[in-house]
Amino acid sequence: MYDGIVQDLIDEFGRLPGIGPKSAQRITFHILQTPTFDVARLSELLAEVRERVRFCEVCGNVSEQDRCSICRDPRRNATVICVVEDAKDVAAIERTREFRGLYHVLGGAISPIAGIGPDDLRITQLMQRLADGTVQEVILATNPNLEGEATATYLSRLLRTLEIAVTRLASGLPVGGDLEYADEVTLGRAFEGRRSI
Amino acid sequence: MYDGIVQDLIDEFGRLPGIGPKSAQRITFHILQTPTFDVARLSELLAEVRERVRFCEVCGNVSEQDRCSICRDPRRNATVICVVEDAKDVAAIERTREFRGLYHVLGGAISPIAGIGPDDLRITQLMQRLADGTVQEVILATNPNLEGEATATYLSRLLRTLEIAVTRLASGLPVGGDLEYADEVTLGRAFEGRRSI
Repeated sequence: MYDGIVQDLIDEFGRLPGIGPKSAQRITFHILQTPTFDVARLSELLAEVRERVRFCEVCGNVSEQDRCSICRDPRRNATVICVVEDAKDVAAIERTREFRGLYHVLGGAISPIAGIGPDDLRITQLMQRLADGTVQEVILATNPNLEGEATATYLSRLLRTLEIAVTRLASGLPVGGDLEYADEVTLGRAFEGRRSI
Repeated sequence: MYDGIVQDLIDEFGRLPGIGPKSAQRITFHILQTPTFDVARLSELLAEVRERVRFCEVCGNVSEQDRCSICRDPRRNATVICVVEDAKDVAAIERTREFRGLYHVLGGAISPIAGIGPDDLRITQLMQRLADGTVQEVILATNPNLEGEATATYLSRLLRTLEIAVTRLASGLPVGGDLEYADEVTLGRAFEGRRSI
């Protein structure tokens, strides 16, 4: 539709997740027409990001060094490991400031439909981390959906043989939510997990 | 939240229009975790786009040459000029395949609130294009909102002194909407039903 590079850039933006053709066009024209937008910086970051970013050799989180900033931090509690599906989940949990232990990123969840089995996840690496007896608790923080639950169940059975406490994040009503709009499963879980106050 | 360049890239994507922090994070991880995504190509296009793209010296449309592909095309009807606010509107009208004339991009619309007056738009250049008597009709295709209507009214008064038919896109366009987002059929109808003002 447009001449050469303008259309090329629109097409390239359109390949990114959540960006449709209209958004891609809007972004491209924003870049063309906004002199204050630092297009060189975005270009350079994109050129470098894959080279500079690796995955932490211990936990699998994103990092610019062999070990990520959390694994390198001596103030973190090395006796608790929180197991998550994805590096994005690490960031989400860090934002809560509730957790001061270490992480283990599985790199996905067990999903027979998507053809992802236990061997495709970083489970062997997790077992190696637990071998020396430092870790006393493993928190299973996989997603509260079918795949995440299956993965948590699989891991809890695997860890049963070790002398380690295995816990799962509580399911229930989202804070700030509305009971009326909660789905049955969530509301059922909230009842199941009710606590004395 | 993330180490160095990952957070830098999330921040940079977050500066683009329509991309919030969550989308920026999703896009960044897509780039990191999808080996098939050609990040080098996106980086190169961004590095080059501002250098390669200029604005057509005749109509103001985006172009990689001094004159855009529409102005260079001898098959286009040089007796009709369609006046639009933005280069994105040219692409939207081209998609309808209803119009075979030339364009004139104003670079915005009259808006006292935003401090944009007639002198900030490419109106002098439009008058120069009309001086030699080739053009017999000017179609005012500014957006059907307050600023676009004000601009159309201003131009229609200015053009009244010339021996040129002045028309305005008519029924079909929802009032208060944005020309860029109109569907092809609606925009095509609007061309068909244009009226003298």
